[in-house]
Amino acid sequence: MEYRFSDRVQTLKPSAIREIFKYAADPSVISLSAGNPAPEAFPSKEVAEISREVLANRAVEALQYSITEGYAPLRTHLQEYMKSHWQVGRDFDGILITSGAQQVMDLVTKSLCNEGDVVLCEAPSFIGSLNSFRSYNARLRGVPMEPDGIDIEKLEQALREEPRAKFIYVIPNFQNPSGITMSLEKRRAVYELAKKYQVMILEDNPYGDLRLSGDPLPCIKSFDEEGLVVYAGTFSKVISPGMRVGYAIAPAALLQKMVVCKQGEDVHTNIWSQIICDTFLTQYDYDAHLERLRGIYRKKCGVMLRAMEENFLPCITWEPVHGGLFAWCTLPDGVDMPEFCKQAVLRKVCVVPGNTFLTDENDPCQSFRINYSTPTDEQLVKGIGILGGLIREMLGK
Amino acid sequence: MEYRFSDRVQTLKPSAIREIFKYAADPSVISLSAGNPAPEAFPSKEVAEISREVLANRAVEALQYSITEGYAPLRTHLQEYMKSHWQVGRDFDGILITSGAQQVMDLVTKSLCNEGDVVLCEAPSFIGSLNSFRSYNARLRGVPMEPDGIDIEKLEQALREEPRAKFIYVIPNFQNPSGITMSLEKRRAVYELAKKYQVMILEDNPYGDLRLSGDPLPCIKSFDEEGLVVYAGTFSKVISPGMRVGYAIAPAALLQKMVVCKQGEDVHTNIWSQIICDTFLTQYDYDAHLERLRGIYRKKCGVMLRAMEENFLPCITWEPVHGGLFAWCTLPDGVDMPEFCKQAVLRKVCVVPGNTFLTDENDPCQSFRINYSTPTDEQLVKGIGILGGLIREMLGK
Repeated sequence: MEYRFSDRVQTLKPSAIREIFKYAADPSVISLSAGNPAPEAFPSKEVAEISREVLANRAVEALQYSITEGYAPLRTHLQEYMKSHWQVGRDFDGILITSGAQQVMDLVTKSLCNEGDVVLCEAPSFIGSLNSFRSYNARLRGVPMEPDGIDIEKLEQALREEPRAKFIYVIPNFQNPSGITMSLEKRRAVYELAKKYQVMILEDNPYGDLRLSGDPLPCIKSFDEEGLVVYAGTFSKVISPGMRVGYAIAPAALLQKMVVCKQGEDVHTNIWSQIICDTFLTQYDYDAHLERLRGIYRKKCGVMLRAMEENFLPCITWEPVHGGLFAWCTLPDGVDMPEFCKQAVLRKVCVVPGNTFLTDENDPCQSFRINYSTPTDEQLVKGIGILGGLIREMLGK
Repeated sequence: MEYRFSDRVQTLKPSAIREIFKYAADPSVISLSAGNPAPEAFPSKEVAEISREVLANRAVEALQYSITEGYAPLRTHLQEYMKSHWQVGRDFDGILITSGAQQVMDLVTKSLCNEGDVVLCEAPSFIGSLNSFRSYNARLRGVPMEPDGIDIEKLEQALREEPRAKFIYVIPNFQNPSGITMSLEKRRAVYELAKKYQVMILEDNPYGDLRLSGDPLPCIKSFDEEGLVVYAGTFSKVISPGMRVGYAIAPAALLQKMVVCKQGEDVHTNIWSQIICDTFLTQYDYDAHLERLRGIYRKKCGVMLRAMEENFLPCITWEPVHGGLFAWCTLPDGVDMPEFCKQAVLRKVCVVPGNTFLTDENDPCQSFRINYSTPTDEQLVKGIGILGGLIREMLGK
């Protein structure tokens, strides 16, 4: 049989990160390439407790079919929580529980984009989302990042030049991969541009609760008076990614289309895990749990930053890390970045080459991404030591 | 904001069954419209036991990110099980764990169909799958059913007339909604036609293990020497639908595309539930569990059939029920089927109007679907009694 694939998957390929993960699966390799929560960050005891209670007293509810929109108590409680804590959600908004925030990216694209429509995104940006947009044959246009977030002038230029733009995809807090946080001024500017050009905003906020220093900034969704913004949230970084529970808070008119699309994709999200998230959110001290997580990551982040300061030559720069799970390091001109990543693997340290996160992987890029949540402190110190030595070697210093 | 939706969702609407479910949610209404497993069919005690062990001893594995292809032991064990029990799976095949079998429908369509490509399906067929195909703007062409399965002559005619046909969608065992089982001869004929016209087959088998009488027939996938067939399986009807664990056994070349698409949709399937399914399949007596389920459904099916025989006029006919969860009843000419279903709701009994399952809902249809797995025995007897009275009333008898 000669398979005739759809045009949309002809060019899709497994993410480069996945290829790197194959090396990282070798236990002798130090992986600084993942984005996994630290094992000690999982509320394992609490999940076990809740699970025991649920399966003892209302197993049928947890095992039976449920509705596409999501477990009703979780929807209510999340809406209340996001409104009271982040001023996210208005009367015209609804909430949909998804199978991870990844599914929000999928459902928004499916509901809004015809083939050839344009998604404007930060460059660099999260490859999982970019691949989701690509899988509907949306065209990606990257807008460069500045230290305080997306370049607003270039964003407006893109909006002027792309009449088929359907939405702007941004990760305002501790962006993956750059770690950059968008300033308040730029958050407002992005919103105003979306209003002016009548395009939607897809605001992806997986790391917002993992702020390690500085004051929280309002979500773009909190400005949303006209129903322009889809907010994508997730429990992956704060409870468990293996559960695959995310959510969209979005205008009901759009949400209705997303619900129908989700029905055709997976009917509904695993119901056991929705009950776990709801119970953990409402019956436990959720805010204290988040504070505990920030403590874990603050410490790990400190270990990474100290190791980088001690081992990296001053010509290596990195964005300040105020939260999230990543550091974004830039090599000086003259060091071949892809070669550096390849040589690192040969020395049994994995990082992710920065061009992976560009809309065109062939564009030049001098940066690479380090994750500090997954490795142990010892692995961080040893791995960064090896990277530091490799750079010195490649620079002949 | 005036929303500009994609063409593919412009015409998509929530399934008619969902609208009926809204009535069915009223506890005073007897719902014969669902497709839920019987509450007593869930292995709740075993799930609780496995969950306790997993969350006590390897919580991090159950809560952490996992790989898109699925939990490795489950993949191995399922492949072994399907090969030894059903001769399904060859060297060129792989397996992908999905978020319910619904996701197999989605991923196959996404990987194979450009907009306007054609999916040939049984008429009637499962609306969830039809909506999944529609969501990629595939064009559906229904091929009428006969008592022993799809009309082979009309299928060949459709294949001749539709050069853009990409796959044939069939549910060979106890089809939803018709309950019809495809004969061995027709299974072979469908395979030969797919080979002759070089189109794929998507074989959906959610009810295969729920055979209540007669001998099992081989899956179409068991004939597959050329890599033409995608087999869609699920634990929804035999362990729990709320867990959302399904799988595809398919040629590796196609599966690779499906994996990339799944990555963009939900990264991977809930890992806790994959471990539950694997442990239940390997550490418990799975075949004895299936036998217990068949016992439950044989009894419930008997209650339904007796009630139908006692309450329905002889001019009402139904397909013999040898398995699955549904009976497909046909009203005599002269009874307005949609009006019958509407009147039934007013008398607080819900069934699903048969036209819901057609590729064009506006085509004439005299049938309706009854589910016997969800209601209690008392509800079955009472509900069917009301339906019988309604028909007599509408016929003036």
